[in-house]
Amino acid sequence: MNYMDHSATTKPRKEVLDTFITVNENYYGNPASIHEMGVEANALLERARSQIATMLSTENHKVIFTSGGTESNHFSITGIAKGFRSRGSHIITSKIEHPSVLETVKQLENEGFEIDYLEVNKDGIVSIEDLRKKLRKDTVLVSVMYINNEIGSIQPIPELAEHVKKNSRAIFHVDAIQSFGKYPVDFNFLGVDVLSLSGHKINGLKGTGIVAWKPELTFFPVLVGGGQEYGLRSGTVAVPQAVSLAKAMRLTFENLGHAHSQYAKWSTELREFLSEFPSIKIISPSDGAVHILSFSVRNIKGEVLINALQTRGIIVSTSSACSSRQVKTSHVIEALKIADDYKKGVLRISFGYGMEDQQIQDFKYHFKEIMKQLKGE
Amino acid sequence: MNYMDHSATTKPRKEVLDTFITVNENYYGNPASIHEMGVEANALLERARSQIATMLSTENHKVIFTSGGTESNHFSITGIAKGFRSRGSHIITSKIEHPSVLETVKQLENEGFEIDYLEVNKDGIVSIEDLRKKLRKDTVLVSVMYINNEIGSIQPIPELAEHVKKNSRAIFHVDAIQSFGKYPVDFNFLGVDVLSLSGHKINGLKGTGIVAWKPELTFFPVLVGGGQEYGLRSGTVAVPQAVSLAKAMRLTFENLGHAHSQYAKWSTELREFLSEFPSIKIISPSDGAVHILSFSVRNIKGEVLINALQTRGIIVSTSSACSSRQVKTSHVIEALKIADDYKKGVLRISFGYGMEDQQIQDFKYHFKEIMKQLKGE
Repeated sequence: MNYMDHSATTKPRKEVLDTFITVNENYYGNPASIHEMGVEANALLERARSQIATMLSTENHKVIFTSGGTESNHFSITGIAKGFRSRGSHIITSKIEHPSVLETVKQLENEGFEIDYLEVNKDGIVSIEDLRKKLRKDTVLVSVMYINNEIGSIQPIPELAEHVKKNSRAIFHVDAIQSFGKYPVDFNFLGVDVLSLSGHKINGLKGTGIVAWKPELTFFPVLVGGGQEYGLRSGTVAVPQAVSLAKAMRLTFENLGHAHSQYAKWSTELREFLSEFPSIKIISPSDGAVHILSFSVRNIKGEVLINALQTRGIIVSTSSACSSRQVKTSHVIEALKIADDYKKGVLRISFGYGMEDQQIQDFKYHFKEIMKQLKGE
Repeated sequence: MNYMDHSATTKPRKEVLDTFITVNENYYGNPASIHEMGVEANALLERARSQIATMLSTENHKVIFTSGGTESNHFSITGIAKGFRSRGSHIITSKIEHPSVLETVKQLENEGFEIDYLEVNKDGIVSIEDLRKKLRKDTVLVSVMYINNEIGSIQPIPELAEHVKKNSRAIFHVDAIQSFGKYPVDFNFLGVDVLSLSGHKINGLKGTGIVAWKPELTFFPVLVGGGQEYGLRSGTVAVPQAVSLAKAMRLTFENLGHAHSQYAKWSTELREFLSEFPSIKIISPSDGAVHILSFSVRNIKGEVLINALQTRGIIVSTSSACSSRQVKTSHVIEALKIADDYKKGVLRISFGYGMEDQQIQDFKYHFKEIMKQLKGE
């Protein structure tokens, strides 16, 4: 199988699975227990937390483990909005955020918060000018994603964060789920206050994620109970998942430079290849992320192309996994104001760990054949 | 290691870990993807859901996967309270619920809900009379746990549920986390509307759980975003965890009768053994759950006993893992109005899968030695 849908999910690394099994077999105690099996499990948990904090340039007690990216975004946004409600009730986000952000701010809107959405240009990028116009004294939270999951547009996070810091008291949250392992994700570089990460996008396990932050912050705790994770996220901590996530992050982190340059090479190669078809429009901006390449074939449904490719063993997706079962055009594609005859035929290729050059050649060969059949090109 | 703390957490079964690895290696697609790897992953997910629904006597679309017991309780309680707010804003629960229930209802109280707490008698049991007094026309939710995690008291759930059904429109939720695999957990028997289960208490994985329900219900979705799990719990579904949970539940379910009778035998044996020490008071009610035995040694701190036992390789806990790092007496022990000189010395022994008779004999031998040293008994 030629899997090129790494932005939807990835195959866990062998080392991650091995770690998971080892912890489950040898350190299955409840980390909240005071007996030695609890103490041992807790020590592993804290080591994982410390490794992650170091990678992101923050302190150990500013990393908590969640059940994945959606929970991480939900916790960050709801936690900050409600935790800082005394400062105001205005939230700024963008029109092309992941549904876990957009639906969460809608939930908050129903609870009395006011939401402003940053527009994007044809490349899917927000502007400082628009942010300047929308930022207010009572803005409590600005949440903008780093790399868009559907088209790979890269937001100017350091600039946006600096503007927010200089001109308001708002907390800046970044959804960095599609970025880790492909671009630098580090508080010192990004300048943000809070970030969300997910394990299954970086060859870790599904059902794993973190929220990390840099300044001292007061979060409203969404999941309450036993008071685990500094009282911010109750529930028995899944130590095997936490340790596996630290492992996945460390292996991904170490490979950052190599991965980035490899994906850049493949992206350039496929862009050149695709641009030769008259009916193809490349949607991902030319300065977009190296690992996500979104394009559209005029007047052909994405599903048709996906099926044609998978009968040849190639797995790609329409815009995103989340929205792939929905009939309507994704909100990201809508926000880009793409011409109607290109809206239905969107495909996303996304690169990831373990991919080899041969898969690119294989894609090119088969895609050419398919285009010949379907479009006579 | 003689592990007797199965109510805190359990070691995952080998079959559960094997299943987890197999699914991760061969079916790692995102179940929301429309390509064949997504379709395959989704088919596995739906099979797991169906197996669980069958075990509990409900329909497939009335089971959703969560990140564990705390999230399951949170989703059930918040989901029902907010989902049925038009009916009223009164909630009834008991004084000895798990913190994930008690803290969640407190959160709802801050949002305008009114909470009434059922009292318990000296055996930790609520009464129909108290429920009758507290049940109102505007009660939207009654949440009472099946088996208490600290002392093993068993609530008369079928009777309570029947009373609620006959006399109100309230939805009945049961936290059945400590019950599955030891007592029948089935909608037809319990008569409840919604139940919560956790994987890591039944030799499944940490970070796994479900919410299941029987009638048609409208839940307020806590985690929103991609619309997974019928729109009720967004986030990429962790298929390996879901399939592993179905596996853990099935193996536990099949062993129910054997486990129950084995634990009953050990419980009787240890009760007889412990009752011979003049300074020991057995806290678990005589008709309590077979797998949880809570007792106290007069004027000795629980931590001292735990340490003495673990130097001899025996792992037991103070009341519960969640509250074991807190200095104050647990809310359950307080609710039982136990004499002060017994409050500090509470120990909980809890049986589980994989335990052998030799562990009971080992405990008896070492505990006798410890009591000789500490109390001269």
